[in-house]
Amino acid sequence: MKAYQELSREELLALKAELGQAYEDAKGRGLSLDMSRGKPGETQLEIGMGFMDALNSQSGMKAENGVDVRNYGAPDGIPEARRLLADMMGVKPENVIMCGNGSLNVMYDTISRSMTQGVLGSTPWCRLDKVKFLCPAPGYDRHFAITEHFGIEMITVPMTPEGPDMDMVERLVSKDPSIKGIWCVPKYSNPQGYSYSDETVRRFAALEPAAADFRIFWDNAYAIHHLYDEEERQDSILEILSECERAGHPDLVYEFCSTSKVIFAGGGIGAVASSQANLEDIRRSMSIQTIGYDKVNQLRHVRYFKNFDGMKEHMKKHGALMRPKFETVLKALKDLEGLGIGEWTKPNGGYFVSFEAMEGCAKAIVDRCREAGVTLTGAGATFPYGKDPKDSNIRIAPSFPTKEELAMAADLFVLCVKLVSVEKLLETRHNSLSKTG
Amino acid sequence: MKAYQELSREELLALKAELGQAYEDAKGRGLSLDMSRGKPGETQLEIGMGFMDALNSQSGMKAENGVDVRNYGAPDGIPEARRLLADMMGVKPENVIMCGNGSLNVMYDTISRSMTQGVLGSTPWCRLDKVKFLCPAPGYDRHFAITEHFGIEMITVPMTPEGPDMDMVERLVSKDPSIKGIWCVPKYSNPQGYSYSDETVRRFAALEPAAADFRIFWDNAYAIHHLYDEEERQDSILEILSECERAGHPDLVYEFCSTSKVIFAGGGIGAVASSQANLEDIRRSMSIQTIGYDKVNQLRHVRYFKNFDGMKEHMKKHGALMRPKFETVLKALKDLEGLGIGEWTKPNGGYFVSFEAMEGCAKAIVDRCREAGVTLTGAGATFPYGKDPKDSNIRIAPSFPTKEELAMAADLFVLCVKLVSVEKLLETRHNSLSKTG
Repeated sequence: MKAYQELSREELLALKAELGQAYEDAKGRGLSLDMSRGKPGETQLEIGMGFMDALNSQSGMKAENGVDVRNYGAPDGIPEARRLLADMMGVKPENVIMCGNGSLNVMYDTISRSMTQGVLGSTPWCRLDKVKFLCPAPGYDRHFAITEHFGIEMITVPMTPEGPDMDMVERLVSKDPSIKGIWCVPKYSNPQGYSYSDETVRRFAALEPAAADFRIFWDNAYAIHHLYDEEERQDSILEILSECERAGHPDLVYEFCSTSKVIFAGGGIGAVASSQANLEDIRRSMSIQTIGYDKVNQLRHVRYFKNFDGMKEHMKKHGALMRPKFETVLKALKDLEGLGIGEWTKPNGGYFVSFEAMEGCAKAIVDRCREAGVTLTGAGATFPYGKDPKDSNIRIAPSFPTKEELAMAADLFVLCVKLVSVEKLLETRHNSLSKTG
Repeated sequence: MKAYQELSREELLALKAELGQAYEDAKGRGLSLDMSRGKPGETQLEIGMGFMDALNSQSGMKAENGVDVRNYGAPDGIPEARRLLADMMGVKPENVIMCGNGSLNVMYDTISRSMTQGVLGSTPWCRLDKVKFLCPAPGYDRHFAITEHFGIEMITVPMTPEGPDMDMVERLVSKDPSIKGIWCVPKYSNPQGYSYSDETVRRFAALEPAAADFRIFWDNAYAIHHLYDEEERQDSILEILSECERAGHPDLVYEFCSTSKVIFAGGGIGAVASSQANLEDIRRSMSIQTIGYDKVNQLRHVRYFKNFDGMKEHMKKHGALMRPKFETVLKALKDLEGLGIGEWTKPNGGYFVSFEAMEGCAKAIVDRCREAGVTLTGAGATFPYGKDPKDSNIRIAPSFPTKEELAMAADLFVLCVKLVSVEKLLETRHNSLSKTG
């Protein structure tokens, strides 16, 4: 297959006519599909329904330490739930505090607390003239929304398949005390599905920030969300808490995780893991904020999954449902190979495929898809302030539609990429001709 | 019975010896009882166990508007849950947003949001030199803890059986723009069990605060927590949202409630009710903070209670369990009648009895009780900064111990009140004699 860039103007015009006709046909099909968010699909929810039987009116309602989960008490959560989520993160249960029904809330609260209370005795961030965060991008739009909401200035750091550009991270945090944090999705990153290399994790742990209250926000959202059962096709990353401790920086990181994409989205449990000093700092606020989170749901998790092995078995079923969806998308994208108009990631897990279109094409592709009935994540969403400087990144979320719907949606996507790229190439040549002429 | 004040020094000394002996005997009994917190008792939790069967693996998991409660979406909560908690508060469902597993968290978040984001476009409170709150006292210690945590200066407003001293409230809020809010438990107040009179509610609705971002924090924690089935023994208060609207101040109030003390403490659902403008303001932050709260538990509530009538029926069972506990305490306290050493409330609902000891005696009574194995709420806790200026108020929480345990605890309490009062009277007379001599 010839790259589009090598086609003559006449060839491009013919292609444009052909693709335009196909696009009009596609519009006529009246699709209405949503590939915009990392939302679990119906079947993923169905295979978790046994969860609803894990507790009933005959169940014992005491945790293993004798705490009645129906009453107040045990603000850190019940021990068996702390153990379960500790295992998800590969940390010790005593480094875990159980929180509400998801991890986004925990991250928001962590920033909010830093704004009004400071971090381990530091000046509250809201009293500072300037607070900045590093934002590896493409990244997770909801992370960027939190920092923007609190008026924190966001600095984009390029992502690589090994993780964020660590030269840049090290340089910036070591010299600028107004940089207070960095957002990370270290495993099966959102949206690329990249997992940080051992070197990247070690360089994070070794950071020497100018700000004592700088923290790494380690959102381990996809810790156990593999697409494949074979171990060699499962990514693994170094455990950050112990790496930080080893590097002499035990308080450098907050780690977040939840079961929102293990059991039910919004019906799960979230947690934060950190050093004892950081946890004490968190408790100082949390003990004012709540009398404790939902321990009934904590117990339901433990009774259903039994232990981390049970959870991993459950996640194999998720993998079996997600795998064909990812493969459907990747199969459709194969049609773009060699055309020089796009590149994409082929992750081993997580919820997304990241697509890099030709510069200046992402918005137009997303618009075209929407017009024909397929909703994608808004172009630009994967960058701070919603602004992709190259207008090239598109996040594809294959989880929610059925495989059949996905096949249609992915074909349409490929068609739109081709059409928009041809139009772009024609426009560019026209412009350069005008300039020469 | 003669008042202690009328006893001679010799009579007081004899009484002190007798009470001292009885106290030593009580200590020998090795009690270990907790009357410190408004914690539901074991039987209250047991009668709610049907709740655990309200959803199982065979249940339909769609809300009435078709939303799958297992997935993301419906950030305001499912319609039937909004209706249920709206009915609890006597407001319209469209004025309600469903939140996390309790109302304390919602109140904390409301203050926290005001600190960093302001209120309906006002300057964020963290940017102001001084922010003050009015704190009717005796009041709820966890309210005061929130305002203290955010560095908000607390001004004590005396409580009366009709509600806070409204002359003082009106005077202060109308002239001081740094006063941004007031804490209220309008029905079966914590700790007195007072319910605000219609006039009090109307004067609240008619407030003309100097600060545009002043809000009433209306914690309707005990809206349906009656001790008696007879309607004439059930308190009722005016509905504040519609009163505020009628008075031309629709945005003046946030109302909070939860099912923590209806079903399981910590396993319930919370909500906030307010004007559309305030709700929009809340959503602006909430949509950043969370992808949505636990809708599975919302649906579980609706399937179990069916509707507000079902919830009221359930609360009659709570009343039947709480009533004998309150009566046990009140019966023991009767022994203090006419002695001039204490007064107490006789509420129709809620979770507490408020006891007013002789000035300067509360701390000593609580200490004596603790030494003999009965834990009460710390003296002073019912006042801002934990400082009761008269050292006289003690909160009694009868809900958690069994009736038998309560009888023992209440008897010990009465004994300690007598002993500490006698000692106080002897000390006072000694001091005044010394001064005279």
